[in-house]
Amino acid sequence: MAEATHKVKIVTKHEAEFTQLLSEMRLPGLEITQSISEATILLASPSTLSKELHLYPNVQWVQSVAAGVNQLMDDTLPKHYQLTNIKDIFGPQIAEYVLGYCIARFRHFNEYQEQQAQKIWKPLEYQTLLDKKMVILGTGSIGNHLAKAASVFGFTTMGVNTKGIPPKNSEFDCVYHVDELARILANADVVVSTLPSTNATHQLLNADFFEACEQVLLFNVGRGEVIDTSALLSALSEGKVAHAYLDVFINEPISQECPYWNHPDVTVTPHVAAYSFPKQVLETFEKNYLKWINDEPLVNVIDFQKGY
Amino acid sequence: MAEATHKVKIVTKHEAEFTQLLSEMRLPGLEITQSISEATILLASPSTLSKELHLYPNVQWVQSVAAGVNQLMDDTLPKHYQLTNIKDIFGPQIAEYVLGYCIARFRHFNEYQEQQAQKIWKPLEYQTLLDKKMVILGTGSIGNHLAKAASVFGFTTMGVNTKGIPPKNSEFDCVYHVDELARILANADVVVSTLPSTNATHQLLNADFFEACEQVLLFNVGRGEVIDTSALLSALSEGKVAHAYLDVFINEPISQECPYWNHPDVTVTPHVAAYSFPKQVLETFEKNYLKWINDEPLVNVIDFQKGY
Repeated sequence: MAEATHKVKIVTKHEAEFTQLLSEMRLPGLEITQSISEATILLASPSTLSKELHLYPNVQWVQSVAAGVNQLMDDTLPKHYQLTNIKDIFGPQIAEYVLGYCIARFRHFNEYQEQQAQKIWKPLEYQTLLDKKMVILGTGSIGNHLAKAASVFGFTTMGVNTKGIPPKNSEFDCVYHVDELARILANADVVVSTLPSTNATHQLLNADFFEACEQVLLFNVGRGEVIDTSALLSALSEGKVAHAYLDVFINEPISQECPYWNHPDVTVTPHVAAYSFPKQVLETFEKNYLKWINDEPLVNVIDFQKGY
Repeated sequence: MAEATHKVKIVTKHEAEFTQLLSEMRLPGLEITQSISEATILLASPSTLSKELHLYPNVQWVQSVAAGVNQLMDDTLPKHYQLTNIKDIFGPQIAEYVLGYCIARFRHFNEYQEQQAQKIWKPLEYQTLLDKKMVILGTGSIGNHLAKAASVFGFTTMGVNTKGIPPKNSEFDCVYHVDELARILANADVVVSTLPSTNATHQLLNADFFEACEQVLLFNVGRGEVIDTSALLSALSEGKVAHAYLDVFINEPISQECPYWNHPDVTVTPHVAAYSFPKQVLETFEKNYLKWINDEPLVNVIDFQKGY
């Protein structure tokens, strides 16, 4: 057996599970190490790694276990290594979250639960998802997969990005430039942010943004920093936003004083819209590792300039 | 303007809405009548019509506003007319209902709602719908559309019918003969009955049926008569069925004494999985009416022998 030439350290709170699964994969020439100085490859959670990245002298490649890598963009952190993230495994989970809550809302799941508790048989008027309009901010793999799933329920899907050009294999009915936001928000029933946290997305969902909306269901499954919190609270009280489903926040967990907790028109979930299931993460790691040892370009490489 | 040669009477509790929409359509040679003796065509709810069908001397064609027509199959009722039903509009609504509740269950919507009320931030372990197995009883337009929508979430879909042959334009991964039920139920995560009420489906979901299941989510969106109630209650207590989502019942509304109301593992909804939206019903009526006046074969004709 050839001597291991690559040493990977696992830097996540799910280290035990990753270690076991990765060992079973027996990737050629790969050894799992506990040594900070020996590690040339890291399989890491960005939030955990951001606190200790400066300790690793020899890291060349970091495979993030998450989609969001903004914690590693900080100016004070080194950026001499290749960074790759996880993409394709989140779209299906995000689609479940967004469409599940859309259906629960439009089809009155909560109301029927309350009626059942009181033994009340009372059909309620409802609308279906058919012909509703969904604006999806971000046309990456998550937004694109969401568009595909939403289409099956009859949603018209409108993607928004910084180029106004559809992604490869687009599943959107239309894709718009971010400068056209106000016009397309006016027709939206559902608005979903899948955006990463970057300088360009910081508080993109501000008072002007919400002013263009009318009784929308708002989903934030990207990053908390894209929303101006006080603008959202105003939009909720003015009916610009009928209900907000928030899975990500600027500080997580949110504090006990956070007004979202007991807001009747806000659903708070604890960053669970998509989870990096180790088995799926390791499929991406394997693919990239085999490229890495053959000096081929990696997939899902992050551009430190853009931040995604 | 030519004299009206066809007189339709509307026999549903939503008569006003149907009357207005149908008037606006200005179908050639059609007059809406209030006269029981003049009516040759009925646009009717089967449950309402079954109580008064014997009063109509001249009816030649009945367009049901619903999918289920079992109330008109009763031996004591006349069957000298053509009966057509509504099909294609229900699939999307049923898919919303079934997949919405599946997502709410697997993704812990209720638990997160309770945690939010207590300001608890606690991610829960979960499974996604990916690679789950759904058995769909009935491979008609409702079952077939459900299979299509479920596939987008990664479900493997197994249809069951009396022939073991896939429907035209099948969306199922596989279709099985009803005699193979026990074998395929053993692998099912979700079981959905879209079956009509007929002699062949009466209590098909009995003790033997549930014995083959293991911790399934059961949906009944077809007709109440297909379930043996006491067998289901036993299956719930034995864990053969983890949770039952029941939208249809033998007697509706169910009585205040019905054990389903306060069963912790049963979700009761008041026959709302799919609704005959008048606008959509009238699209089928128009299509059939234009065939009717041209002596062409109607679509969605019910076979009184089969009952569907």
